[in-house]
Amino acid sequence: MEEFGRIGIIGIGLIGGSIGVEIKKRKIAEEVIGYSRKIETMEKAVEKGIIDRYYNTPENVIKNVDFLIIATPVNVVEKYIKTIKETNPEIFFTDVVSVKEIICKKVENILGRNANFIGSHPIAGSEKSGIESVKEGLFENKVVIVTPTENTNKKVKEKVKIFWEKLGSKVIEMSPEKHDEVLGFTSHLPHFLIYVLLYLGFKNNKKIFKNCFGSGFLDTTRIGKSNCEMWVDIFISNKKNLLKWIEKYEKELKNFKDYLRKEKTETLIKLFENSRLYREKIEYGKKRNI
Amino acid sequence: MEEFGRIGIIGIGLIGGSIGVEIKKRKIAEEVIGYSRKIETMEKAVEKGIIDRYYNTPENVIKNVDFLIIATPVNVVEKYIKTIKETNPEIFFTDVVSVKEIICKKVENILGRNANFIGSHPIAGSEKSGIESVKEGLFENKVVIVTPTENTNKKVKEKVKIFWEKLGSKVIEMSPEKHDEVLGFTSHLPHFLIYVLLYLGFKNNKKIFKNCFGSGFLDTTRIGKSNCEMWVDIFISNKKNLLKWIEKYEKELKNFKDYLRKEKTETLIKLFENSRLYREKIEYGKKRNI
Repeated sequence: MEEFGRIGIIGIGLIGGSIGVEIKKRKIAEEVIGYSRKIETMEKAVEKGIIDRYYNTPENVIKNVDFLIIATPVNVVEKYIKTIKETNPEIFFTDVVSVKEIICKKVENILGRNANFIGSHPIAGSEKSGIESVKEGLFENKVVIVTPTENTNKKVKEKVKIFWEKLGSKVIEMSPEKHDEVLGFTSHLPHFLIYVLLYLGFKNNKKIFKNCFGSGFLDTTRIGKSNCEMWVDIFISNKKNLLKWIEKYEKELKNFKDYLRKEKTETLIKLFENSRLYREKIEYGKKRNI
Repeated sequence: MEEFGRIGIIGIGLIGGSIGVEIKKRKIAEEVIGYSRKIETMEKAVEKGIIDRYYNTPENVIKNVDFLIIATPVNVVEKYIKTIKETNPEIFFTDVVSVKEIICKKVENILGRNANFIGSHPIAGSEKSGIESVKEGLFENKVVIVTPTENTNKKVKEKVKIFWEKLGSKVIEMSPEKHDEVLGFTSHLPHFLIYVLLYLGFKNNKKIFKNCFGSGFLDTTRIGKSNCEMWVDIFISNKKNLLKWIEKYEKELKNFKDYLRKEKTETLIKLFENSRLYREKIEYGKKRNI
């Protein structure tokens, strides 16, 4: 309890709101204070027991808490880092966005090397967003990646790791650069590819398609229901890695298309068997690991 | 009961086996007689109540039933059409494979224009296969596409439509060519793209990836757990349409990659919003339609 004192959360969507619920349920803080750009969201959050109370400005939250979580989309994080500089530059804080290099650099540029910050990325999202999608137990048995740099204060790192562990997560460490490279493949690339697949459907849409989608198509494209603005920000923020992965994907697709054109049945079966086994390995690893 | 008399099923995997279960549960036939290449599969099918009995040869099944369903992978269907020609060329029959033009042409080439055949494709598969994955109620509220040609006997078409309706499905009609074009997009393309995505992961696999797969990646790639041999056969059998769709996809991917490179945020959001809405429309259509 004392360890975290008062915790502030800026941004009360799926992630920020579910953090609030969990802090309160697990009694990790004295008080959870929220801020959202919309007053209705803050009122709803109090009503639903997601936060204890709110302030009408981010400044007031930042000034009055011991530990802060920025849980907004990528493109507004910078604004709040600037607010931290102006109001409480010593505050211990983390963020939860899906790209890390750009955020860690912004913190260093704005607050300097001694900022009491480490980036976090809980692998716990869904295609849903907003306060309506807030979920109890969202972080239980989920991985949270924290991204120390050479300047990260050890005390901050330990505090943030303990915080996530208290929410039920397993914490792993990775440099911000490595994080963006890896997540570029495991998350950003699939989202990009699926949006493109759905766009192709949209462009070629005919009434006849309607009844011909099976559960495979629906599951494969579930991530295409995600908030586009948020995801385009992630794509642009991780452009370097995402472009690299898209280009690798294009090369493989071209190779496989050529095998198909030449009817290389045995080659296709042999290579796709690697795909299938890789998928099994991922699922097995996920089940076993936590 | 009398309408279908004795029904034969060749191939007792997910689809064939689940058809057997359903015929017996709904008492649609006097008797369900099965055939599988493996005697153990046939024995297990009797034991589990999937079929009433089996014959050791496909010839005996074909000779002794009033209505036949070929529920094997694409690449062995031809063999059984030839067996039909040799043993009971007048038999009423259908198949259930995921490509239709190639099957309908084979039937016409081998049995002639008067064959008592119409192709079927129940949109009711999953990534699982084999007798262990047989499921009660698999066809309930699912779409089955039947694919008449200009030579299709009206009596056969009605019989096969009634058959699927009795299993709880909604039947729609489409030419074999149209079916393959449409399913090329709604099913074959996503399977191909996902196998390629997983192959890229396999090739670039590092230990560090392990904890970084979220539920989005798992859902998106669930279809990549499917039997490769079966799917490569489908890809090759629908090569013409699949190549067309892959090429269209490549063009879109290239366009979107260029928008990303040029950081066209607004364009990306606007276009991907079409993807998102298209996905919503599909889900809404599926829920409302049946």
